[in-house]
Amino acid sequence: MSALIRGIGTLLSLEGAWKKSGRFVQTEDLGLISKAALLMDQGRLLWVGPEKKLKSALANLPRQYQKVTREWDVQGKTVLPGWIDGHTHLVYGGQRWDEFELRCQGVSYQEIARQGGGILSTVKATRAATKQSLKEISQKRVDEFLRQGVTTLEIKSGYALDLKGEIKQLEVARSLEGPQIITTFLGAHAKPPEFETHESYLQFLSEKVLPQIQKKKLADRVDIFIEKNFFEGEMAKNYLRRAQDLGFSLVVHADQLSLSGGTQIAVELGALSADHVIQLGPVEIQRLAQSETVAMLLPLADLYMKCEYPPARELIDHGACVALATDYNPGSCPSMDLSLVGLLARLYMKMSLPEVIAAWTVGAAKALALRDRGSLLAGFRADLQVVDLDWRGLFYQTGTSPVTQAFVGGKSMPL
Amino acid sequence: MSALIRGIGTLLSLEGAWKKSGRFVQTEDLGLISKAALLMDQGRLLWVGPEKKLKSALANLPRQYQKVTREWDVQGKTVLPGWIDGHTHLVYGGQRWDEFELRCQGVSYQEIARQGGGILSTVKATRAATKQSLKEISQKRVDEFLRQGVTTLEIKSGYALDLKGEIKQLEVARSLEGPQIITTFLGAHAKPPEFETHESYLQFLSEKVLPQIQKKKLADRVDIFIEKNFFEGEMAKNYLRRAQDLGFSLVVHADQLSLSGGTQIAVELGALSADHVIQLGPVEIQRLAQSETVAMLLPLADLYMKCEYPPARELIDHGACVALATDYNPGSCPSMDLSLVGLLARLYMKMSLPEVIAAWTVGAAKALALRDRGSLLAGFRADLQVVDLDWRGLFYQTGTSPVTQAFVGGKSMPL
Repeated sequence: MSALIRGIGTLLSLEGAWKKSGRFVQTEDLGLISKAALLMDQGRLLWVGPEKKLKSALANLPRQYQKVTREWDVQGKTVLPGWIDGHTHLVYGGQRWDEFELRCQGVSYQEIARQGGGILSTVKATRAATKQSLKEISQKRVDEFLRQGVTTLEIKSGYALDLKGEIKQLEVARSLEGPQIITTFLGAHAKPPEFETHESYLQFLSEKVLPQIQKKKLADRVDIFIEKNFFEGEMAKNYLRRAQDLGFSLVVHADQLSLSGGTQIAVELGALSADHVIQLGPVEIQRLAQSETVAMLLPLADLYMKCEYPPARELIDHGACVALATDYNPGSCPSMDLSLVGLLARLYMKMSLPEVIAAWTVGAAKALALRDRGSLLAGFRADLQVVDLDWRGLFYQTGTSPVTQAFVGGKSMPL
Repeated sequence: MSALIRGIGTLLSLEGAWKKSGRFVQTEDLGLISKAALLMDQGRLLWVGPEKKLKSALANLPRQYQKVTREWDVQGKTVLPGWIDGHTHLVYGGQRWDEFELRCQGVSYQEIARQGGGILSTVKATRAATKQSLKEISQKRVDEFLRQGVTTLEIKSGYALDLKGEIKQLEVARSLEGPQIITTFLGAHAKPPEFETHESYLQFLSEKVLPQIQKKKLADRVDIFIEKNFFEGEMAKNYLRRAQDLGFSLVVHADQLSLSGGTQIAVELGALSADHVIQLGPVEIQRLAQSETVAMLLPLADLYMKCEYPPARELIDHGACVALATDYNPGSCPSMDLSLVGLLARLYMKMSLPEVIAAWTVGAAKALALRDRGSLLAGFRADLQVVDLDWRGLFYQTGTSPVTQAFVGGKSMPL
């Protein structure tokens, strides 16, 4: 038994992009197939190719797959891998729009923090929220990502900064439905007021929290916010090494506001991704490009923060693997608009459209160490989106989603 | 008989903003009413106020209105005037996404034009499109505006540049359904290849086209693209005076790419709005601010064009009335995202949130010379939106619309 999608106007398999791990992606690497079809079963792709070869493809499959039991005719629409958003802070309580208005009017961060704003206001609201209320509001946000064609979604903790609350955040994240959820423990997001120093807080996380997260299997990944006057240098490295010893993969918030060593630490410790990577000099660009660490670029946060944009062109030209993500969070990026992320990458980061598409798929899959998705190839997960738009029209408009159907693990999801 | 909307969590009447024509709008000018209700009949508002006064308000209305025949309970949602988008080029054929990719990769306008791109490629496609196909694609775009709470929508011609095609564009615009459509004749958008000089083309428009547009009542407004090496100076003024003589209101694409005199001409001739107004010096800011001409700001086009943003703060502080609009068009702004327009105004133009809300309502109403909308006051049109969001959360996210229901002339529209 198998399920069939036929009538595909153009399918983007991203076959070439996968082979090159997202490096130097050109149009030809998008693996364009005109008038395509695909077969899937048990959440995996069995075959992808031109529809005129469907009959012979079916005949060549093992017997148990030869009977097509479900069929969708997408009537000329475009099919491509589901987007993978590898960096969000989606589970949080409260809102920070009043603080945003102050910030737009030029009030300083220090003053906003003095008035009770900033990340600690989200920590307060997230700690106070019940698990049920957090789950309800978070599910709505996840639905919004799915509606845009996101089939894998990373979610970080980091808005409770205590054992109970961080566990609550991760449990809520794990319970969300729609895209496949990947969780990351970001206890080292900011120092909570209960601790005097960043060192003492990291020590608490290492001794009391990380082992619990590991034991409860609530996250496979550990992230840390490395920045001057926050977590940095040896204390950050020691914390990450401890996480690594416990079996976690590593991720680093690196060199966003200042060149503070995050990228170097990420590369040195073999982190999966270095995220933000705005303030890089030639040395860091070179090191990142020569490593297997993915440069996770978050230009929508840069728009909201009025930062510079990361040096995507230099990174790609030096051979780095690049991913794009929303960084959706209530403070520095309260938007989930993937189309705007890609548009900014094209307009302000000199990324080509094929590079943007690869960054949202194969690049993000590599950043999450998920080698079973990001491309539409036999054996890969059947995570895909049906789009009522020529692929050349992607990341051109903003605000409107052309996605008409999404499949997660072969299952058609209500949008 | 009347219709009732009740259960309104907060209603924004914009009463104060209207009185001041959008000048110096503060939160108190938004006319916030908690726990509000409103009554309407025949497309007009009869009464707006706190729900606890509904009974006495009904009793005080003329007898024929005292019976409520239709009722909506919006269960605590926010109600505010429908948005008014006063500057779009929505009716066009073809697409320019390939040209956009070239532009992002640094190819010059001249080279793009040489390859057959630019505005003349849209002219070619629009001339070739049938009226029916233009109508179908345009209606989809209009639906997208309505979905975002737009209840009045301006649409310009200017992609045919000949008599037959301009009439076709305006007839299509007039036939579109949903928001109320306001049409503007923009024959003076660019010089078509059939004419040697800008002067000879304007002469053709003045003699052969304007009288037809007037006779067929296809537009009340005439717009012109004033820019160095395009339409400028005396020839532009003469054309606008001719339009004025024929009874048209005036609008000017002014000082977008260079300080080329458009704003001065707009003020001198009493145009309803000067649009773009990016390259203004202190003199132009002063003159515009002291005039009744509205400064129509289009920051989403500036994002796409990588221009500077217009000096909104200076304009408002000097007393100008300001409107915001999308400038939706296939070349320099292929996005209809009102939320992003407002976000850019807050982030990069130092406009406060109340100013942004006023610019999308009372400011835009003034720019279109429509004194019956933009506020929710008795006697005004019942053009309004129901929003599932605290008003302080508007223009903060992008890409998602919180609008759950829109009323155009008192009629609930399918979104």
